[in-house]
Amino acid sequence: MSNLEPIDPGQLQRWFRTDVQSMTAYQPGEQPPWGKTIKLNTNENPYPPTTKIREAIVEATGRLERYPDPLGTPFRMQASQLLGVEPDQILCGNGSDDILTIVTRSLLDRGQLLRFPYPSYILYRTLAQLQGAVTEEVPFADGFRLPEGLCAPHPQLRLVVIPNPNSPSGTWIEPEALLDLARRLPCPLLIDEAYVDFAPGHCIDLIAQQPNIMVSRTLSKSYGLAGLRFGYLVARPEVIQMMRKVKDSYNCDALSLAAATTAISDQGWVEENRRKIVATRQRMLERARAIGFIVPDSHANFIWCTHPTWNLKEMYQKLKDQRVLVRYMDYPEWGAGLRISVGTDAQSDACMDLLESMR
Amino acid sequence: MSNLEPIDPGQLQRWFRTDVQSMTAYQPGEQPPWGKTIKLNTNENPYPPTTKIREAIVEATGRLERYPDPLGTPFRMQASQLLGVEPDQILCGNGSDDILTIVTRSLLDRGQLLRFPYPSYILYRTLAQLQGAVTEEVPFADGFRLPEGLCAPHPQLRLVVIPNPNSPSGTWIEPEALLDLARRLPCPLLIDEAYVDFAPGHCIDLIAQQPNIMVSRTLSKSYGLAGLRFGYLVARPEVIQMMRKVKDSYNCDALSLAAATTAISDQGWVEENRRKIVATRQRMLERARAIGFIVPDSHANFIWCTHPTWNLKEMYQKLKDQRVLVRYMDYPEWGAGLRISVGTDAQSDACMDLLESMR
Repeated sequence: MSNLEPIDPGQLQRWFRTDVQSMTAYQPGEQPPWGKTIKLNTNENPYPPTTKIREAIVEATGRLERYPDPLGTPFRMQASQLLGVEPDQILCGNGSDDILTIVTRSLLDRGQLLRFPYPSYILYRTLAQLQGAVTEEVPFADGFRLPEGLCAPHPQLRLVVIPNPNSPSGTWIEPEALLDLARRLPCPLLIDEAYVDFAPGHCIDLIAQQPNIMVSRTLSKSYGLAGLRFGYLVARPEVIQMMRKVKDSYNCDALSLAAATTAISDQGWVEENRRKIVATRQRMLERARAIGFIVPDSHANFIWCTHPTWNLKEMYQKLKDQRVLVRYMDYPEWGAGLRISVGTDAQSDACMDLLESMR
Repeated sequence: MSNLEPIDPGQLQRWFRTDVQSMTAYQPGEQPPWGKTIKLNTNENPYPPTTKIREAIVEATGRLERYPDPLGTPFRMQASQLLGVEPDQILCGNGSDDILTIVTRSLLDRGQLLRFPYPSYILYRTLAQLQGAVTEEVPFADGFRLPEGLCAPHPQLRLVVIPNPNSPSGTWIEPEALLDLARRLPCPLLIDEAYVDFAPGHCIDLIAQQPNIMVSRTLSKSYGLAGLRFGYLVARPEVIQMMRKVKDSYNCDALSLAAATTAISDQGWVEENRRKIVATRQRMLERARAIGFIVPDSHANFIWCTHPTWNLKEMYQKLKDQRVLVRYMDYPEWGAGLRISVGTDAQSDACMDLLESMR
């Protein structure tokens, strides 16, 4: 290890923003060494991307000494056709985490309010803290329906985020309910559609009806490209225009832009992939319920398994000891659960077999 | 075009942070269509990266469905050997722009002060504005030496940034002078070494002596990997630890991590590349001076050409009409110049031939 003298903590305190010092870093799911583990903890896709995508990447290696297109125009052209929006309604990001960063940096100032449902994606809290903003996490109504409190009047309310489908529950809110929420809000509503390709609908079409609606997407889940870091935002052109000022100039690299453009052009593969994952999900869900878990209907590529009395943390640990990695999450005042990603049939069966043996 | 009703400007004003509304977006250099232009405007490397790097990328396409390593540990291990620091002193970024974003988000709060020399890299101003911070741009002393004003006492001073070598001037400050500056500062000093591989020294070794020194690097220039988006920060472990909280979890993708790790392992190639660029730079510099330009000695991969009376903007435009793209920059109260990247000998000669014909 290093021979450096430690820095005096008081020194660090004077250097760093108070918000940064006091915040807890967002903890991403464990990333074990490749190949040794059945990895069902971060909602990755078990199926590798196609040869076409690999070819697009290889082709793009031929011009790496040049900066990439700052706006990702070929991707935006292709996506605009698929989504039925204009290219100037699309902002490319280095993963949808980058999109969430751009949105929060654009809209949230010190002391202002970000609201989102609970339990949900904890990263929203981290991003608000980085802005010095405050958060209100409104518990879901029964059956993971939208709680009324999301649109309660508040002078500092500047952004509401709804992941749809939601994580960790995998549940789905009908677009009509989100349109109604957006109409009642004085601020933008971001619908985080990371898992939307596994759901029965989407909210892109609402943007034309309601200017405060924004939709974020990622290629990490249904496209099987988590390693690539590519996401995008769809919103009104004026909103996108303003957010371009906030992003890093070259936030997407040439390889991911090439791969993303090819990936989004190959909807046959996405459809086939979705079909397989939805079928395995149904099988897992029935199996988990038969084992005795309480599992809400899932519209994502994972299921959320809870139980009133079982020691779920112990079950998580026993799975891990057998090299099956799932996500144990404990939400204060709500409860704990195992969030299990949909793998291949064989991976999912192996996980369920182990859980059954622990009953 | 779209049939959407425009959003009422008052609405946008209520939604977006005032800082974002009032700021001017950073304008990156023009990126013309590939192949048609001699592109000497964004300090890219004219030589493509090696086959080894392309092979590393191809190999990494085999696991794109998985999230990348959040900390880029193989890269940090490799870089730590090269740089003589510990792996926990290195933070990987999505280009050094991402590193600059992480540093400013970590250190600068509303109303606090960022100081840097003038004329220099305008992005620092944009990043401070995004934090609601203020900037003081202290004009260089004669010969682009460090101005005394950089360490003038100020209660809100939280960060000083010195690009070394500087852009647009290409000039170089000796590490001793930067060590002296850091010792006199009450806050961190970021030395932006984007162009350092073309200079006679570097400042990494100062970090052990002085805990408030941080050094940022990029693979966009000397490594010929601008399209890849990869940069890194070297600092004390406690500083890196705190900044990890601020970065996006998976800020670097699997392909760029693989390529960067391979690139930094192949110092023979970098050395060869540097040798060629330094030789062409000398040739360009002599030629530009013979034409009549005033050109400071350059320690970067570009030269800064000024002249007291010539119409440099017109020269820029005439070059562009001939498909030679350089950067025209006009710094209020300082003056204008042409910043011309070092290309291949043939590209550089073509540019100089045209400039000579315009005299």
